Formats: sequence, C-alpha cells, structure tokens
Amino acid sequence: MATIQDVARNAKVGASTVSRVLSGKGYVKAETKERVLKSIRELNYTPNEMARNLFYRKSGVVAIIVPEISHPFFAEFVNAAEIALYEQGYQALICNTWCEETYELNYLEMLKSQSVDGIIFGAHSLDAQMYQEANRPIVALDRDLGAEISCVAVDHRIGGRMAAEELIEAGCKHVLQFTGVDQVSTPSNQRHAIFAEVMKEHGVTCDSYVMRWNSFDYNYYSSITQHIFEDYPGIDGVFATDCIVMSVLRVALERGLRVPEELKAVAYDGTGVISLAYPSVTTIVQPIARLAQESVRLMIDLIQGKQTEKANIVLPVTLRRGETTRRC
Amino acid sequence: MATIQDVARNAKVGASTVSRVLSGKGYVKAETKERVLKSIRELNYTPNEMARNLFYRKSGVVAIIVPEISHPFFAEFVNAAEIALYEQGYQALICNTWCEETYELNYLEMLKSQSVDGIIFGAHSLDAQMYQEANRPIVALDRDLGAEISCVAVDHRIGGRMAAEELIEAGCKHVLQFTGVDQVSTPSNQRHAIFAEVMKEHGVTCDSYVMRWNSFDYNYYSSITQHIFEDYPGIDGVFATDCIVMSVLRVALERGLRVPEELKAVAYDGTGVISLAYPSVTTIVQPIARLAQESVRLMIDLIQGKQTEKANIVLPVTLRRGETTRRC
Repeated sequence: MATIQDVARNAKVGASTVSRVLSGKGYVKAETKERVLKSIRELNYTPNEMARNLFYRKSGVVAIIVPEISHPFFAEFVNAAEIALYEQGYQALICNTWCEETYELNYLEMLKSQSVDGIIFGAHSLDAQMYQEANRPIVALDRDLGAEISCVAVDHRIGGRMAAEELIEAGCKHVLQFTGVDQVSTPSNQRHAIFAEVMKEHGVTCDSYVMRWNSFDYNYYSSITQHIFEDYPGIDGVFATDCIVMSVLRVALERGLRVPEELKAVAYDGTGVISLAYPSVTTIVQPIARLAQESVRLMIDLIQGKQTEKANIVLPVTLRRGETTRRC
Repeated sequence: MATIQDVARNAKVGASTVSRVLSGKGYVKAETKERVLKSIRELNYTPNEMARNLFYRKSGVVAIIVPEISHPFFAEFVNAAEIALYEQGYQALICNTWCEETYELNYLEMLKSQSVDGIIFGAHSLDAQMYQEANRPIVALDRDLGAEISCVAVDHRIGGRMAAEELIEAGCKHVLQFTGVDQVSTPSNQRHAIFAEVMKEHGVTCDSYVMRWNSFDYNYYSSITQHIFEDYPGIDGVFATDCIVMSVLRVALERGLRVPEELKAVAYDGTGVISLAYPSVTTIVQPIARLAQESVRLMIDLIQGKQTEKANIVLPVTLRRGETTRRC
C-alpha cells in the first residue's frame, strides 16, 4: 500500500505538498499539482481522512486513560478506539490507572508535559477540575465531568429498567445486583438505582452487593461470588456485569443449582466473553465499538475546532435473550 | 504527589539540574545541590527509576504492536507491559494490526517517522528484515525474527507435552487440537507439533483443526466449534487456547455431553477468562505478566545500551488442574 511519502518521492516533492494537493488548502503550482495527481494515480494511493488530518494534528497521538485494559469492556473499547484513531491518522497512547488515584494524577502530569493532541478518559477517580487543567480536548467515557467536558455513554437508565423487567417477567421474587460504589455519580450507576426502583414497584426483594471502587480483576470476582448463596439465601435472580454473572453461574452450577429454573440472570455489557458462557446468558448489550467510534469522532472534531460546545452523546442499549431468563 | 518539575521550581533550578543531582552524573554546584536535596525533602519527592530513566529515554514512548488488543492474552500482556513501562517512566503506544499485514506495514512506517524509543512486537506477519529497518530497539514476543532481534516466549514445547500427557493419563483415545497456520514458524506452533508427536507415541488418534491465520474474535470461535462433534465424530479430548476450549465446552454441554466423562479438555494460556468457565478447566498457564515484564526489562536495557547482543528469554509454563481432566 502506497504511503503519502511514496507519492511525494515519486512526484519529487515534499509530503507537505502532497497534503496541500489532497486538502485543496494552500498554494501549489499547477504543474506541481499535476505531477502529484499523476503520482497518486500511478501508485494507486487513496487520499483519505488520514491524509486530511495531517493538517490538524500536532503529535498525532491521543491518550486513552482506562482503569485496567485487561478488563473485557475496556479492552474492547480501546481496541475499537485504536482502530478509529488509526483510520483518522492518529495513534493511541494507553494509560492504565490500575484504579489508583495517584497513577491517574501522574498520568495527567505526564500528558500535560507531553505532546498529545487530546485525552479520552475512561477512568474517573479525580475531580472534574483536574481534567480541565490538562488544557486540551477531553472526551469522557461514562461520566459527566462538568459543564465543559464532552461525554459519551449509553442510556444506562433504560438498561437498568430492561434488566429489571426481564427478571420480573421470568418470575424472580428475590434478586441480587452487584453495583459500583454509589457515592460516585456515574451514568453507569444510574442503572442500579432504576433496577432497584423497578423491583420495588413490583414487590420484588432486591439486595445490592456494593463492590470495591474500580475493581476489575478475576480473582476479585471469584472472591465476591463464592459465598453469595450463603450470604443471600433464597435469591432466584442476579444482575451484574458479564464476568461477574459468569462467575455466579459457575458457583451456582457447581452447587447443583438448575439455571434458569432455580437461578435466573441478566448480564450487563455484552463483551465477547459472555458469548463463551454456559448456559447462554440474557444480556443488556452496550454498543462498545460505537462508544469508541463516537468518542474518537468527537475527539477529532474537538481537535479540529469543529466542535466547540460540550456534547453529550447517549447511545441505546439492546436486550439479547439467552437461556438464563427462559420462561420455565 | 510532587513531580520533578515541582522540585525544580521550589529549588529555583531547572529540571535537568534535579536530574543531575538524582543521578549523580554531571556537575552541580555544592550549594545548588544542597538546595535541590532540601526541595526533595520538603516536597517528599521520591527519586525513582522513572527519574533516572529521564537520561536515557528520548520520547519516553515504547510502541507495542499486537494483532488485536481485545483478545484476553494480548489484553493481559499489554496491561502488564504498560504498568512495567510506567514504572520505568515510559508510556505505551498501542498499535492493533487487526491481523492485516498492510496495517502492520503502515504502523512500521508511522513508527519509523515518529519518535518512539523502541518497539515490542506481538504481531508477526512481516519478514524479519522489515523489522530491522525500523532501526531502533525491538523485542519480539513469541517469534524468532532472526539473529539480531531479541525474543521473549514461554517453553511451548514443554507446554505441548504437558497437555498431551495430561489428556493421555485422563484416558483419551481420540483428541482434537486447534492449531495456528503451520507455515509460519512461531515458538507457539511448536506446542502443537509436540502434542501430535506424543499422541502418536501413545497410539492416540490426533486430529488437528487448522485455524485461520491471526484470527482472534469470538464469533470466529463460535463458528469453528459449532459442528466439531459432527466433523470429528468420536473425539473424547480437546486441546486449544482458553476461549476456544470454553466455546467447545459450551457446545458439548448444550448437546448434553458429560464433562469430563465423555469429553476431556486442556486449555492453553491461562488468561483470567478461563477462571469463569464451567466446569473448571485444566490449563497450561503462561506467565503473561512475567512475559510482559521481561519484554519491558529487555527493552529498557536495549534503550540504555546495557543489552547489546540478541537475547532469548524462555519462561516456564505450569499445569493447573481442573474438572475437565478429572480421572473418572
């Protein structure tokens, strides 16, 4: 595949001249332009977004800050964001905060002193003000960081309602949900508030297990699910993110519980991992790739000055039915 | 947490002076040194590896090229590599090749023109020579790229043998393994060659399903496992990477097969995902975090000129027994 450098070399001009021809901005002599266009045709070079973006970007690098990239949700988000950035001529600098506030703070310092064109935040331990001090385009995933920072998220309220209604229709009388720490106001926590509300409206008992803030490792999942049937006797339904539901199902099946007859479940996220679960799990699916694509689109618009006001992008979730809420 | 810049500001010197004091290299006036040390104490600044590395690094960025970061193995590798780099004052630039050779080529071009201090390769579609042209420190994960490029991998031959012996001892007579494309010489393919050899020695029938080159998505796993019991009638054992084994178990359980009585399995990799499987899976575990840490250690040594010859680092695998090879 020909690069812009190949086209430039072949036309005996600089890459910036090729860029000017591609964008139609800036002066290029008619004869030179002809030579560049001929070179483009000869090398079968496709002038694309990437080339056009060379004008706006400075470093060509966008930082993505996540708590832990090995968690399936963040891994899929970063995967899709990296592809979307690549298609626009950008590269992704990855920062794991490992759920430590000091890491996040250090990264913010490092990024301020480095030449990154923008920052996509998927980790949210710090105050909104800290983020604004970074003084460059910021897009926040799943959290409102104040009046100036654009945010991309799914409609978690609808997601929580769908999950609740699904478990109620499947016949649950006593459900357990695994929630994040509720002091922190994130859109994703709204789903748990709604879930509890809907359960209450329908006279279904709803317990909540509050997880450690920002904990995403598999050992932790095993440890918190191991004893739930002793700690919450009589539960017949579970609502949690993908990996936690899988961990609960494993514990249930090892105890000889029948799914869905004795335990029903709805998972939240819809990462690829849930497709490996036995039995198949009813899931509220976040469009993770689209979340990433919208975050990147917004970021590029911010970098290019096309987007000047705060944007709030809310994407829909969908319900995918599996064996875990089969009517029985 | 105080940064080197804070220390410098407080001591009314430049950051490079603080660095000289920290490293003990270069001349600093006694009086200035005293002021810097006082500032370090006042701000409770910890002179660490990160600070020392400021001398050697140029951009402070190491690129990590993987086929697809959302695959659990690569997600965990990148996660650990990012942390190890962070601890040395470096950041990780992530490049997904999406299993496309043209992407990999483009990245190599982009990286050559960018200021990254080194490249860790976890994707391997290109010729060894292409990599050397990058003209900066390179560490290859799981592939020998020639006489000059250092390589980090586990002992896949031992891993393949352990898997085979485990299935034989569990009583298998006809096994199926899922392998990568065998034209490409990677250390990880050696495990499948050994696996087949050991099976042959013991008179066990061994079929191999050759997967598409560099395919890492969950839909693909579902599609190739869906019909294995029709396509390979009579198999009583399976050997594959984590996600594929989980996909096979799901298909088996949905057909009413009993595990391990009618189907035994050994997984390879030991990513966190396998801990969610029901029933628990016997697994050959790669020390993924250590692979990443060794890759980064080697990279830093190459950047700092401490490592001048090609290094071949081979780490051991371990066997973790689960329900899928229980003697019955």
